[in-house]
Amino acid sequence: SKRFCYLFAIRSFKISGVALCALPTPKMTENGLGHREKVLNMNTMNPNVKRVEYAVRGPIVQRAVQIEKELKEGVKKPFSEVIKANIGDAHAMGQKPITFFRQVVALCAYPDLLEDNKFPDDAKNRARRILQSCGGGSLGAYSASTGIEVIRQDVARYIEKRDGGIPSNPDNIYLSTGASDAIVTMLKLLTSGEGKTRSGVMISIPQYPLYSAALAELAAVQISYYLDEDKCWGLDVSELRRAVEAAREHCKPRALCIINPGNPTGQVQSRQCIEDVIRFAAEERLFLMADEVYQDNVYAEGCQFHSFKKVLFEMGPEYSNTVELASFHSTSKCYMGECGFRGGYMEVINMDPQVKLQLTKLVSVRLCPPIPGQVLLDLVVNPPRPDEPSYATFIKERTANLEILAEKAKLTEQIFNTVSGIRCNPVQGAMYTFPRLTLPEKAIAAEKGQAPDMFYCMKLLEETGICLVPGSGFGQRDGTHHFRMTILPATEKLKIVLENIRAFHKRFTEEFS
Amino acid sequence: SKRFCYLFAIRSFKISGVALCALPTPKMTENGLGHREKVLNMNTMNPNVKRVEYAVRGPIVQRAVQIEKELKEGVKKPFSEVIKANIGDAHAMGQKPITFFRQVVALCAYPDLLEDNKFPDDAKNRARRILQSCGGGSLGAYSASTGIEVIRQDVARYIEKRDGGIPSNPDNIYLSTGASDAIVTMLKLLTSGEGKTRSGVMISIPQYPLYSAALAELAAVQISYYLDEDKCWGLDVSELRRAVEAAREHCKPRALCIINPGNPTGQVQSRQCIEDVIRFAAEERLFLMADEVYQDNVYAEGCQFHSFKKVLFEMGPEYSNTVELASFHSTSKCYMGECGFRGGYMEVINMDPQVKLQLTKLVSVRLCPPIPGQVLLDLVVNPPRPDEPSYATFIKERTANLEILAEKAKLTEQIFNTVSGIRCNPVQGAMYTFPRLTLPEKAIAAEKGQAPDMFYCMKLLEETGICLVPGSGFGQRDGTHHFRMTILPATEKLKIVLENIRAFHKRFTEEFS
Repeated sequence: SKRFCYLFAIRSFKISGVALCALPTPKMTENGLGHREKVLNMNTMNPNVKRVEYAVRGPIVQRAVQIEKELKEGVKKPFSEVIKANIGDAHAMGQKPITFFRQVVALCAYPDLLEDNKFPDDAKNRARRILQSCGGGSLGAYSASTGIEVIRQDVARYIEKRDGGIPSNPDNIYLSTGASDAIVTMLKLLTSGEGKTRSGVMISIPQYPLYSAALAELAAVQISYYLDEDKCWGLDVSELRRAVEAAREHCKPRALCIINPGNPTGQVQSRQCIEDVIRFAAEERLFLMADEVYQDNVYAEGCQFHSFKKVLFEMGPEYSNTVELASFHSTSKCYMGECGFRGGYMEVINMDPQVKLQLTKLVSVRLCPPIPGQVLLDLVVNPPRPDEPSYATFIKERTANLEILAEKAKLTEQIFNTVSGIRCNPVQGAMYTFPRLTLPEKAIAAEKGQAPDMFYCMKLLEETGICLVPGSGFGQRDGTHHFRMTILPATEKLKIVLENIRAFHKRFTEEFS
Repeated sequence: SKRFCYLFAIRSFKISGVALCALPTPKMTENGLGHREKVLNMNTMNPNVKRVEYAVRGPIVQRAVQIEKELKEGVKKPFSEVIKANIGDAHAMGQKPITFFRQVVALCAYPDLLEDNKFPDDAKNRARRILQSCGGGSLGAYSASTGIEVIRQDVARYIEKRDGGIPSNPDNIYLSTGASDAIVTMLKLLTSGEGKTRSGVMISIPQYPLYSAALAELAAVQISYYLDEDKCWGLDVSELRRAVEAAREHCKPRALCIINPGNPTGQVQSRQCIEDVIRFAAEERLFLMADEVYQDNVYAEGCQFHSFKKVLFEMGPEYSNTVELASFHSTSKCYMGECGFRGGYMEVINMDPQVKLQLTKLVSVRLCPPIPGQVLLDLVVNPPRPDEPSYATFIKERTANLEILAEKAKLTEQIFNTVSGIRCNPVQGAMYTFPRLTLPEKAIAAEKGQAPDMFYCMKLLEETGICLVPGSGFGQRDGTHHFRMTILPATEKLKIVLENIRAFHKRFTEEFS
């Protein structure tokens, strides 16, 4: 029955397009003896790892990197550069860092600069305060495994302010190596049982493949619930209920993961929807995981970010005293886009105090999250205040970054929806569009063993240099086809990208009709 | 039989001292309803996580943090500060960062400084070169999941130079979030099977508890081999053979982990010993994992660091073409001690090419190691050259750090060996001493359920403010008692620490005699 669960998990969520490229049979060339098997080979390695898939950096991206090298070596292509719209990597696409953030990081890294008149006083004060809470006054010391205490306090104050005064306890804050780290840690804690009692975790389809990858690695059961593309990727509780009831036959549902604003689908959930989800989690006794790393990335009129924590507390003690919640944030997205620093945090609510000790113990094995990432996180939650010298520049930079993103979100939707055979929901938030493709039957039949949208994206890459991720890498309803594209290329470049995709789609449709 | 394996793993390695402090029965105070169990509780959580122990940050350190707070609040103690000699955290103990390293990090974080005349040209050149290989010229972009390509090239060149020209291929280099990250990733790959075919991994006793913690989490079987305290914590192949043969009864031995220079035991392995270990791994078909993060920390006369890679290649093609090896290094130790940056790398040798693809896929799920840590690693493997302006200062700083460590290693051994009831091997390398304690029978009987050396260390902490880790947290032969102490406190402070331990040991022995 355990095997059945795994099969189910795989069957219920076909990521057919992201298998690794097949390698030729090993020729034992490295081995002079020619007859010894490797100790660690495909048969002896961890079978859970084999099941892991991560399309965002999958074979299409590997091919993109190859093409970049070919271009450098002078190989002729019908384009002059590869445009990587596969990953939410704002700085790589030209977004500039927030000046204040980088000034403070530089001051912390090399404190001799504290004597330098070129740096504003507020940056110096932040740096001094952070260094005082580092061992030996150095970024090079380990911090507490849960993160530097003053930074956890700053995070708690940030959450309180964001949520209109609902209290946040620094003891519930765990800093992390990006949000991914904390998400995997929580999923790890939640995984137990065998066979029909194996933990099941509900994730949306389409989803961000960190979730399916972590569940595969942990051999936990993935319970897929579908977002409603026709309702702007909305979440309906009846679909949650269908999914959990079906799953009860073969596993023990324990957790429900929500990404809001949505990745890869860009929707922003209404307050009502969040309430419904919380009520559902309470009824069904599910641990809630709210991935809120795009909380500042809300563009559509009438849309607003509501944190799960705030809604939970506004629903009254029946919920706020019982529903277990972990919510996640990161330095990688929003207006700052500092992915490389790997900063993040998780807040846990209503967690069993003994489990919390276990969590603290577990994170201590990896010593501590990277200190420069912790510093950056501190600046995100404690940016310049109106009375400080860096405030004006900070606000200008932040506003500009968010306005440009909003403009590109609109532009993307508009242009795609002019293309016959591409249908695109509004990009209400986050950094992605996940448009639906109508592909000719011949194209769908063309490549056996490869997802049709993988075939499409690979061809797009070869012909235009544009690197997208096929919808099959995120999961989608059977028979539908999509891709995920970031809205991050600079506006002028984005226009060209959108035009090139439009032209490609027309060619592709004609070729296979 | 699976259950038997787990039990065996626990029994064969008693870490009795590091259990979490017991909590009172939860009073359901958070829960207004008073009758609902948590979804995630001690019964439903991941049982493997419950088995994880990590003494270096265990209850004794938690108590130390508490005492620090009490001191701040004005609580009277027989000491004025807590001295944390529990963890190899050089900067926290006052060691200064290498100037050049921090200059380059600051320049990379805030490239406006590239216009500043205060920075030397070599630092600027390094920063420019690194930024050119970052997406968008920013530390804020993700890198390839295996790390920035030019840094992997620099690592390969560093290894070649270190190993007298034996070639290193950048495609075999995986950058990581400290060495811990890469070690856990390798152990994860190596874990498979059930019951008697479950993977077994050989680790030394005493060991660094990352290994036992990771094996517990993965539910792999720990195979303990004992270092010989009477031979300066030497490693004898006959002991390896005894351990692997006993383990074959109940698991499938797949890997052998070596820490050299040793943590917590401070020994440096001879070339002959490394050869013997490699021959043993080849015969027994074990994947070798060489934890070499202390490779620059060698103090004793006549001792020298030999990398496993170099010895392997010098043994000729019979070995160099077959034995699978992963070796690990880090920015956290040696002369730089930059723990907070979480930089590190792993080199894999003779790895199955298909497994390598799986490894690359697995690390891609976590996106990339922190970029500031990658930068720091680049500086470690590519420091100022003799013809560059920062060279003289760099050499001066590095030499001073290593000389002071060598002096403290000697001092520690000398003073401890004057104490009746403490016996201490030479600290040949690394940053720790692991002296053996003779404890009075009454003290051993005093605290049931608590390891005697935990009782000893806890009492030492309460009376003197000195925070050590009991030997039971690392594993030791039954009936023996030890503690691990870092040699990192500043020389004058170290002298006081050693004197205080000497006096405490005398009092303790008298009290329980």
